[in-house]
Amino acid sequence: MSSHRCNAFDDICNQNIEKNLRMNSIAEDSDDEYVSEEDVVTPWDVTSKSAKGIDYDKLIVRFGCSKINDDLISRIEALTQRKAHHLLRRGVFFSHRDFNELLNCYEKKQPFFLYTGRGPSSTSLHCGHLIPFIFTKWLQETFNVPLVIQLTDDEKYLWRDISFEDVRRATYENAKDIIACGFDVKKTFMFSDFAFLGQCPQFYQNVVRIQKNVTFNQVKGIFGFGDSDCIGKIAFPAVQAAPCFSSSFPFIFDSNQKVPCLIPCAIDQDPYFRMTRDVAPKMHFPKPSLIFSIFFPALQGAQTKMSASDPNSSIFLTDSPNQIKNKINKYAFSGGGSTIEEHRAKGGNCDVDISFQYLRFFMEDDERLEQIRKDYTRGELLTGHLKKELIEVLQKLVGEHQERRKQITDEMVAEFMKPRRLEI
Amino acid sequence: MSSHRCNAFDDICNQNIEKNLRMNSIAEDSDDEYVSEEDVVTPWDVTSKSAKGIDYDKLIVRFGCSKINDDLISRIEALTQRKAHHLLRRGVFFSHRDFNELLNCYEKKQPFFLYTGRGPSSTSLHCGHLIPFIFTKWLQETFNVPLVIQLTDDEKYLWRDISFEDVRRATYENAKDIIACGFDVKKTFMFSDFAFLGQCPQFYQNVVRIQKNVTFNQVKGIFGFGDSDCIGKIAFPAVQAAPCFSSSFPFIFDSNQKVPCLIPCAIDQDPYFRMTRDVAPKMHFPKPSLIFSIFFPALQGAQTKMSASDPNSSIFLTDSPNQIKNKINKYAFSGGGSTIEEHRAKGGNCDVDISFQYLRFFMEDDERLEQIRKDYTRGELLTGHLKKELIEVLQKLVGEHQERRKQITDEMVAEFMKPRRLEI
Repeated sequence: MSSHRCNAFDDICNQNIEKNLRMNSIAEDSDDEYVSEEDVVTPWDVTSKSAKGIDYDKLIVRFGCSKINDDLISRIEALTQRKAHHLLRRGVFFSHRDFNELLNCYEKKQPFFLYTGRGPSSTSLHCGHLIPFIFTKWLQETFNVPLVIQLTDDEKYLWRDISFEDVRRATYENAKDIIACGFDVKKTFMFSDFAFLGQCPQFYQNVVRIQKNVTFNQVKGIFGFGDSDCIGKIAFPAVQAAPCFSSSFPFIFDSNQKVPCLIPCAIDQDPYFRMTRDVAPKMHFPKPSLIFSIFFPALQGAQTKMSASDPNSSIFLTDSPNQIKNKINKYAFSGGGSTIEEHRAKGGNCDVDISFQYLRFFMEDDERLEQIRKDYTRGELLTGHLKKELIEVLQKLVGEHQERRKQITDEMVAEFMKPRRLEI
Repeated sequence: MSSHRCNAFDDICNQNIEKNLRMNSIAEDSDDEYVSEEDVVTPWDVTSKSAKGIDYDKLIVRFGCSKINDDLISRIEALTQRKAHHLLRRGVFFSHRDFNELLNCYEKKQPFFLYTGRGPSSTSLHCGHLIPFIFTKWLQETFNVPLVIQLTDDEKYLWRDISFEDVRRATYENAKDIIACGFDVKKTFMFSDFAFLGQCPQFYQNVVRIQKNVTFNQVKGIFGFGDSDCIGKIAFPAVQAAPCFSSSFPFIFDSNQKVPCLIPCAIDQDPYFRMTRDVAPKMHFPKPSLIFSIFFPALQGAQTKMSASDPNSSIFLTDSPNQIKNKINKYAFSGGGSTIEEHRAKGGNCDVDISFQYLRFFMEDDERLEQIRKDYTRGELLTGHLKKELIEVLQKLVGEHQERRKQITDEMVAEFMKPRRLEI
């Protein structure tokens, strides 16, 4: 699983994507009207030719999921007696499937659990990778529910030209970064597939149950797999689907419970869970609910790709304050005028300005952000000043993450990854 | 895995078998000259239109394996200082791949291990199911090597319309029957996939390593899978391949050892191991060696199918002495003359006579068997007498098996299935 844009940027993928989109086969999602759109969104590739990036409204229609509207946000706030997270209010988490079902559970004091994950990358995480984890942490704290985090080391091994040892090392380093986001070990179980599939028979049993209910034709339609793909890729979607079912974690959930699941993730992961939602009734389990984020853009602009091989395409969690400053000043795509005079006269375009977009993700102060938006749009705030704001926010974010990560010991990783009952 | 003819008879299979045979794609085995033959041999179907059953000489050429000849048998006897088992001397185990490699190991006092298995069936085992286990026990005692026995409950669940609970129950009952064959618990590890894939991470890791090295095109060619097959079937061959690699059992073998493997099985299982032998060099492991048996015929004759739903198609291990007697008298296909006069005049045909064929499998006394063959062929021995010989042999075999099986406790099953170091 790639919780955010990582898979889309990191992976080598020979899929015929146009064909893939055309073949989205599970009934609830297909909509032939939109198949000729230029945006490509799969777990392994996200591409848009527009300077504004992906057209998310069209994507919602094409995937058949729902938009998060003000009513839903108000309901969340009313039920939890907390202000909605800024990632929700600002439309970073913008779409969902059956989120209201989970709120119904919460209202009736019935249990549910959170499931998110990541496909471990061998390079350091970038700040966009934090988004699903920041939001998941907020969900966990707000709803006080168990959380399982899957590290799909098997997926990375299957899709990339990487040794088994390297993928295991990356998994361990990624685990430390995720723990450094501040999850509560008492309520959180993290696992890697390569380890957990030797720890819990019920997990493999659910993988096989899912695999019995999905044909090659279906994964061909959903994921674009072809005859020359290895059988590991063809089998893998069931491994990402299995954590949706609470019986995969018998040490957390009683066997007579069928606890519903909410998955926060970037929308490129939807194909996995469309498949899972199709299978769930055959497994006599509730369909997982989902809440989807938009993609985190590259410094160079929303239509370019972040690349693990290009350290200048994003801010990494290992970057020094100086590297952060230099990268943003040098590479962050500006929506401002080409000269100060033009900027003062015509104003800046926040929709394409990467510094403003990054602030939308990371600046917590709503009023300040709104002020920046107005001032920049009117041309009163210059690009240099906008970048200065972002540099300060990211230097703080990354610096604090580095401090927390230093405290993560091997013992803490082992504790998070130990199958055990959670304290909920 | 079906060690004997069980899969071929038990399973519902919609494969296009002719196409399957035509597509055997791994280079070492294909031989276009023979693809138009009538015999069908796959892990899920064995069919011959000849009264004599499968033409094994042609099958050897088509599969690209080797015939077991007198030289090989002499070498085994010379190396082990034991007379070869009657199943070897009588051509029941008739073919092999690289068996000489294993003998070279043994000669140099280098280790190897045995691997066999069974796809658990919900009905009782029949006496033919004992053949691979009787022979494997002899191999283990003769060469004094560790043995792993795989029960492919996942395979049965994927291929058949059976509930998860029923396949687990069948696995447990089958395990007891296998243990009752007399294996030494100190040297034998038995496991079911549904349990072991939650006990040993290295096993799943090897499954994924194999799956990375096999494409859908390859399993399509080898097994005849199609687009409408579930992804569980497509993934499964890697689960049957994984036990060939000693690193799948880190509790038995040191991680720095790459211990070669010998697999006794019926020849319908060859496709799995052709695939495995193709993958082995990419895994930096020795190719498994194999020793193949012919199929155990149905009572009604070598060209008919044994069917789990027809209790009269074979002698089951739960049959009473009287059931054994009545089934053989009533159903065992006779190669004798249609009248006593004709039989006395023309003699009987041992090649198609099921009673004689069963004696070939189960009568240990060579001289007596040879005398029976001569007398029956000459017409001196009548079918009734031949059947009487077989009834006695099978009543003893089944009766003794039932006695031993009664002694098998839950604790003994647990001990066989516990991952542990073996005493070799």
